[in-house]
Amino acid sequence: MRLPASLHALAESLAKLPSIGPRQAIRLALHISTLAPDRASILLDQLGNALRITRCTICDFPFDGDGTHCAICSDDERTNSVLMVVEKETDLLSMEKVGRYNGRYLITGTLPRSGQFTDKQQTLIARVLSSAPQEGYSEVILAVAATPHGELLAQQVTAHLKEHTKKITRLGRGLPRGGEVEFADEDTLGYSLDNRG
Amino acid sequence: MRLPASLHALAESLAKLPSIGPRQAIRLALHISTLAPDRASILLDQLGNALRITRCTICDFPFDGDGTHCAICSDDERTNSVLMVVEKETDLLSMEKVGRYNGRYLITGTLPRSGQFTDKQQTLIARVLSSAPQEGYSEVILAVAATPHGELLAQQVTAHLKEHTKKITRLGRGLPRGGEVEFADEDTLGYSLDNRG
Repeated sequence: MRLPASLHALAESLAKLPSIGPRQAIRLALHISTLAPDRASILLDQLGNALRITRCTICDFPFDGDGTHCAICSDDERTNSVLMVVEKETDLLSMEKVGRYNGRYLITGTLPRSGQFTDKQQTLIARVLSSAPQEGYSEVILAVAATPHGELLAQQVTAHLKEHTKKITRLGRGLPRGGEVEFADEDTLGYSLDNRG
Repeated sequence: MRLPASLHALAESLAKLPSIGPRQAIRLALHISTLAPDRASILLDQLGNALRITRCTICDFPFDGDGTHCAICSDDERTNSVLMVVEKETDLLSMEKVGRYNGRYLITGTLPRSGQFTDKQQTLIARVLSSAPQEGYSEVILAVAATPHGELLAQQVTAHLKEHTKKITRLGRGLPRGGEVEFADEDTLGYSLDNRG
């Protein structure tokens, strides 16, 4: 006995979604096939809604309702002269929770293995840049991960944006909240020394 | 800025699926909202197919095509006198890959926290038992995990099935393939001594 072809097909599609492995995909397909009709129809409706969602014509962030711009790109109280570059939508959500940043965003998406932005990513970057102030940004903040991958992303973004901004900054590095000196790794301690003050 | 309500709703539904956490659910909802129309419609079709799948009227395993019984329950070459009890559909699939078992299955589903089978599980067990040979099974094999949870499941299954079978056995325990004596835990070494031969 094998997994029925219809569940196998669903599992293969689910396994293509980010961070779902082939075994988890099979378990999910089996579980979904047992959903009660009311929960199933809710899930299908929600998927349909998600697929029809409006995206900001500047930054591509999804948003509810009418209009062409998301809440951030259409908010006149936010400054247009500072741009924060993040890799993922969830990075933006985390940063907004802090409530301390009042500029715009560019969500680049993950850099492909080639280390170069895809055509689609370049189009998005160009679109965001076209909404920059005429004199360019006063600051571009690279809010990328403190990892080698984040470093590479920062280099690529810098190459695309350096002509359009007065300065480029990076998120500060050092001890995280609760971080003990004894257990901090050497890089973190090095950062914390460089950034002392 | 927050996650749009429609994506938030989808993420909440996804987080109710097994082994998907709230963060992964948000990432998935965001990713799904970016799917190309052709991939999206394939996924929706596959979900619809999965939800309409036929289930075996004896063992509840999903199967393709017409009829009332799955490939195993309708296979006359398999013996009806041995029943293997597994917790999950994926356990059955793994066991079938070995190709050494030629009887029927009971898939109990996970034992709830109460430690007692739900009404739905009891109905399923009764349904499988109603297809047992008149004189009862010659053997019931408990193919449950070698964990405290599996132990509890085995106890519950035994309570329900002991009147219906001549004997109840458990999967053998000992060193797994590639297992080194030096690194085996005490329980495993204990099993391997008990089961030596």
